[in-house]
Amino acid sequence: MKSTTRPSSRFSRRSFVGAGSLAIAAIPAAVTAEEVRTIGVPRREYGERSSFERSARLFPQTSTPGTGASRSPLADQYGIITPSSLHFERHHSGVPTVDPALHELAIHGLVERPQRFTMALLRRLPSVSRINFIECGGNAGREHRGNPGATVQQSHGLVSCSEWTGVRLSTLLNEVGLKPSARWVLAEGADASRHARSIPLSKALEDVLVVYGQNGEALRPEQGYPLRLLVPGWEGNVSVKWLRRLHVIDQAMMTRDEAASYTDLMPDGRARQFSFEMESNSVITSPSGGQQLDGRGWIEITGLAWSGRGRIEQVDVSVDGGATWSQAELQAPILNKAFTRFRLPWRWQGQETVLVSRSRDETGYVQPTRDAIIAARGMKEGPDGFNHYNGLKPWKLARDGKVTHV
Amino acid sequence: MKSTTRPSSRFSRRSFVGAGSLAIAAIPAAVTAEEVRTIGVPRREYGERSSFERSARLFPQTSTPGTGASRSPLADQYGIITPSSLHFERHHSGVPTVDPALHELAIHGLVERPQRFTMALLRRLPSVSRINFIECGGNAGREHRGNPGATVQQSHGLVSCSEWTGVRLSTLLNEVGLKPSARWVLAEGADASRHARSIPLSKALEDVLVVYGQNGEALRPEQGYPLRLLVPGWEGNVSVKWLRRLHVIDQAMMTRDEAASYTDLMPDGRARQFSFEMESNSVITSPSGGQQLDGRGWIEITGLAWSGRGRIEQVDVSVDGGATWSQAELQAPILNKAFTRFRLPWRWQGQETVLVSRSRDETGYVQPTRDAIIAARGMKEGPDGFNHYNGLKPWKLARDGKVTHV
Repeated sequence: MKSTTRPSSRFSRRSFVGAGSLAIAAIPAAVTAEEVRTIGVPRREYGERSSFERSARLFPQTSTPGTGASRSPLADQYGIITPSSLHFERHHSGVPTVDPALHELAIHGLVERPQRFTMALLRRLPSVSRINFIECGGNAGREHRGNPGATVQQSHGLVSCSEWTGVRLSTLLNEVGLKPSARWVLAEGADASRHARSIPLSKALEDVLVVYGQNGEALRPEQGYPLRLLVPGWEGNVSVKWLRRLHVIDQAMMTRDEAASYTDLMPDGRARQFSFEMESNSVITSPSGGQQLDGRGWIEITGLAWSGRGRIEQVDVSVDGGATWSQAELQAPILNKAFTRFRLPWRWQGQETVLVSRSRDETGYVQPTRDAIIAARGMKEGPDGFNHYNGLKPWKLARDGKVTHV
Repeated sequence: MKSTTRPSSRFSRRSFVGAGSLAIAAIPAAVTAEEVRTIGVPRREYGERSSFERSARLFPQTSTPGTGASRSPLADQYGIITPSSLHFERHHSGVPTVDPALHELAIHGLVERPQRFTMALLRRLPSVSRINFIECGGNAGREHRGNPGATVQQSHGLVSCSEWTGVRLSTLLNEVGLKPSARWVLAEGADASRHARSIPLSKALEDVLVVYGQNGEALRPEQGYPLRLLVPGWEGNVSVKWLRRLHVIDQAMMTRDEAASYTDLMPDGRARQFSFEMESNSVITSPSGGQQLDGRGWIEITGLAWSGRGRIEQVDVSVDGGATWSQAELQAPILNKAFTRFRLPWRWQGQETVLVSRSRDETGYVQPTRDAIIAARGMKEGPDGFNHYNGLKPWKLARDGKVTHV
């Protein structure tokens, strides 16, 4: 089981169906079924999903529905693109309605030529598209605290991946002209709470985008319509949505969401602040908690891996609770700071066991165990646990095929 | 203008805004606007686009709405992923409603073990995801005939690109066991007209997928829910939707849609049949017909290129009707048989001119002119023109900024 052979060679020419216990009805050589044939639904301007499909974002009912989060149904996702309709949400005062014809982005502060950019002007500027994940800094925090999610949506649903299109922030900063004392950029949203974060100028000039497109069309309202920041690989709340203002400054602004929130108290009483980067992570999405295998035999173990530090280099999967590991196949293209889909065919013999995945990114960083994270950062009381939790996520597979959290 | 320098180096540190005639209002160093601040919309289970967005598929009203096509609004698309809601449609008897719990795929004919595959079984098999375009064989046919589309949606809207997920057809054929005499596979849909096409076994084993996922979720009804064939790079109608049956045979079935339709009569009275491959193509999507530039100065010329033969290697853009050409920047990743986004910043001086793009794929094949196509294949009478038209598409830019077809 220590093998690192590729599944494609290990399993090719093997029968996946015949080897299992699944009953497959043989059919006559000529199919002669006489189904009813009626003319179907005509064309429509903007399509919708099938009424048989019920996959939904998950959120608890609360008295302040604008201040919460909704989680993406990762177990239902195929490939690496999260459907915009199912991209996770996090907002502090609900989703504002912003008229793109009136919306402007102001850039001011330590710049030579403060300017307002209309949406029409932004669309004339050189653009770029990138497939990147966005992950809430608090994703999987409950796993840290020992209150694991029963499903992968509950445990890891605050991460999603889209194709984003917009203008490089460096292009805009070049337009306004940075003053020599410029060091940080404060980004502020047009939501009622004016969510704001400070971003170091080095990152702003490296790969940050001002985004208006998502998965081929305009941003969805929950994702910042008509304009947001995209700060690749960093905790989601710095990718400020409904972006209205960039204030170039000489030191971090110390906003509420970088002082009171999104700062991690350490065991020695000090705090980690500006811990922006989301480290390498992975989770098995199928089989995962709440699912039910319909019989022993061949199945595909699949899941998602991602790293804020770059590309995923390897994902290993264990089908025996971490005793031994097999290298999963990674779906090409393997992109920088994007979801990477991994897959491993596995023949389940009906035994009770634990499935778990472990990612390594191109920097050599290996996804840690929960114990290692607690040893390094301690255990925080409270309902949410730490930000930046990326521990291994085990799923228990019972003899009856039921999958539960460990 | 014969330069092949990358735009990124040619234009870096250049001001795109200042060099044009666009008026940008300077703003005070401190932004003190006192907008109304109200709590926004709460979370929801399945998101929708903003009510400000009106992009729509286009189709004429006809008395037989199930037998037509709808065109994707390419001018509005960002990046390379076509939103599933805006993916072009083509169906011969409307969109059938198929219950995935009852749907089965039968494989029979020249096989050792004819079988029916349920959706649940298909999802247990080793899967793969790929970003591929699908193009109707008749796309842009009206351009051939000299009745060019006034917009890029009218001219080229029968092509779209998605991330598809499913099972390799070779995996399924391995399960059922091919007999030595097997040469072709007939694929049949569950629509009322039982649309059916024969596919050579060599292609079936090469890269054809049986697909259930599109852009991260289940296929949309118009795209074949719950199961379709994906035949990468080939004319769209062979990627049979609502796939219910694969009949392994020893010669092509000569169905209606490979004999009466999708066969091209040549000038010498013979016919091109089984002309599956979509050749290298490209079109400028912005500025494009029906659009209006709001002033001279820097704009981004952008568009899409694709080839059924492999990757796009180069796209050149002419801003003087084809007299001189500049190499456009291609957005990475450049994927096999997928949309490739190209971009070229250009400073419009206000003159009347013609914009046109020209693609070359990795086989060295260069997108031809309309004249070259007519010289090779002649001019067909009738409303639709030829299938497989991939001629250069020029757009006229007038002094007042209006863009029209040539």
